[in-house]
Amino acid sequence: MITDTTLMLDVEKAKNNIRKMATKARDLNLELRPHFKTHQSHEIGSWFRDEGVKGITVSSIKMAEYFADDGWQSITIAFPVNILEVNRLDELASSIELRVLATEIKVLEQINREISNEIGIYIELDPNYQRSGIPISEFDRIVNVKSFIENADNLRFEGFYAHTGHTYRCRSKEEIRKLATPIIEDLAKLKSQINAPICFGDTPSCSVLDDFGVVDQISPGNFVFFDWTQFNIQSCEFDEIAIAMYCPVVAKYPKRNELVIHGGAVHFSKDSFNDEAGTPYFGVISEKKESGWGNVVDGVVLKSVSQEHGIVSCTPEYLQEVKVGDLIPVIPIHSCLTADVMGKYQALSGEKIDHLCEKKIM
Amino acid sequence: MITDTTLMLDVEKAKNNIRKMATKARDLNLELRPHFKTHQSHEIGSWFRDEGVKGITVSSIKMAEYFADDGWQSITIAFPVNILEVNRLDELASSIELRVLATEIKVLEQINREISNEIGIYIELDPNYQRSGIPISEFDRIVNVKSFIENADNLRFEGFYAHTGHTYRCRSKEEIRKLATPIIEDLAKLKSQINAPICFGDTPSCSVLDDFGVVDQISPGNFVFFDWTQFNIQSCEFDEIAIAMYCPVVAKYPKRNELVIHGGAVHFSKDSFNDEAGTPYFGVISEKKESGWGNVVDGVVLKSVSQEHGIVSCTPEYLQEVKVGDLIPVIPIHSCLTADVMGKYQALSGEKIDHLCEKKIM
Repeated sequence: MITDTTLMLDVEKAKNNIRKMATKARDLNLELRPHFKTHQSHEIGSWFRDEGVKGITVSSIKMAEYFADDGWQSITIAFPVNILEVNRLDELASSIELRVLATEIKVLEQINREISNEIGIYIELDPNYQRSGIPISEFDRIVNVKSFIENADNLRFEGFYAHTGHTYRCRSKEEIRKLATPIIEDLAKLKSQINAPICFGDTPSCSVLDDFGVVDQISPGNFVFFDWTQFNIQSCEFDEIAIAMYCPVVAKYPKRNELVIHGGAVHFSKDSFNDEAGTPYFGVISEKKESGWGNVVDGVVLKSVSQEHGIVSCTPEYLQEVKVGDLIPVIPIHSCLTADVMGKYQALSGEKIDHLCEKKIM
Repeated sequence: MITDTTLMLDVEKAKNNIRKMATKARDLNLELRPHFKTHQSHEIGSWFRDEGVKGITVSSIKMAEYFADDGWQSITIAFPVNILEVNRLDELASSIELRVLATEIKVLEQINREISNEIGIYIELDPNYQRSGIPISEFDRIVNVKSFIENADNLRFEGFYAHTGHTYRCRSKEEIRKLATPIIEDLAKLKSQINAPICFGDTPSCSVLDDFGVVDQISPGNFVFFDWTQFNIQSCEFDEIAIAMYCPVVAKYPKRNELVIHGGAVHFSKDSFNDEAGTPYFGVISEKKESGWGNVVDGVVLKSVSQEHGIVSCTPEYLQEVKVGDLIPVIPIHSCLTADVMGKYQALSGEKIDHLCEKKIM
């Protein structure tokens, strides 16, 4: 019996999401190197292995070590390499094929000097997302970094890595295509001059595009669960969302048409989504079914979260229907952060599923 | 040597914050029952014990169990009681003096029926914060709940608990006083009719007020560390902020006047603060000193966070001064959530300090 706030996982939905992306990658002759930062789980990782996945992507060395411990042999840390961690990287590279992202020769010089096990380097390209990477247009800089890598004893040139994170601002398949297509054209121009593998990754593009042009590898992550944001971006159908937080109802406020749940920032993080008036909210509520959850309940949202409290704004009908002591399913705005703060999952069958961030005391 | 993102704690500052609040409470004849949800640490808890604190406040049963394990004998779970956890509450109440918050007779009936160890009940009052609690004005409802508690075999009436969380919207000592004073007057009216202990807790009020009127107990939490929000509310001086996140600089973008740090939502959560134009930011950067950190660097802010990346918007001077591989101190917007997601602290002396949310794999 569930007595406290619990992150529920619909295993069948997650496995279907994995199968669909793996099939698409195979059909389009793309190597799927999925981003495991979303689930951070050995068990969920094994479902990708069942679909033939060999190489994976993570966002920190800790995560890379966690998956290397589980037998993954080719891991990309898709984050600008942190030279302070050079010894830890070197050690990891002694047992797996490790790849990292870099853009600066000074950093690469130091890494090359201080390691004894070869590390693969993707040059990170910025497809005008303006987070990290060399702008695709800066061809001379790209050439210089590539020459440095190719001439360095301990570095191996892996190609290019480009993350179009600005697809998260899109609100339709059409907008995603309009954003991603010219970037893939720019990558094609680059590839016509430097023929090297290109890894491209973000869930909206990878879910929506049918043509990836010159791209060789894709590394989406979020699609394993999807979430309310992805549904609104049109990356997924609502019933493909594979996680929901079951939150105990602890109080009802009929005058305010609100109820209080045990479901706050320590459960959901603080990612929000804006309604049409621009007001942020922190989750939507879905119908409870015999097993799992159903449709969104119209007009009912998680309107605010503090550390442990969540305030759910209700319709009068929903408020009447729900009792103190009920567990209500809340669909998270952003599944990656929700899973990260929760540090564990429970399958609908009751089974516990591991997460890297599992806490010592639960 | 620090190689990855680390939550640093200035132990002297934290101890001074504790001493100052404990002294104030003693001087004003208030019982300090500090909220431990901010630090969630046995070791930091022991510093409160050194100041004579006997009773504490937490926000979940897990936290209550954690501190009971460390010998705390009087613990309030300042959260609307979750009836699904009644057995776990009953078990905890067999070994400590446990207090919870409630507002509904139906809930109290069930608890009274299902427990065998006495539990103390604060009636939660809503001082117009509109999160949880009975509005102070609903006198008849309060009287009914109180009678129920007093007539129930297994319940003990502890008094009233009121959290004025809307002080977080204030931006000066004057605003805090203006908000809190009429609430304390309302509580005085209530107390003239029902003479019972009143617990009042929030860091802005408890830091700023000199006169707590009829209040008997205070339960602030955040003041142990403070943070950028509290500084802007005027609850503290900047140099009273006791934690900073040391973040590795991993890339520099001179054209954008930005640098990328390993410091994202998995380190800071996603609490933000708005600048004068209403644009949210996620932390401010402070000067690095020989030991600890110094003043805020003007014009430099953590402008955005994704899961692991932080983008720092810089002045050209700061960008020039900082090198890839440096660790820069970032002052969090909200210390409670930052500590919760990090799950550990490091003292400036290098010592590790425990946190309930410590992860199995670090």
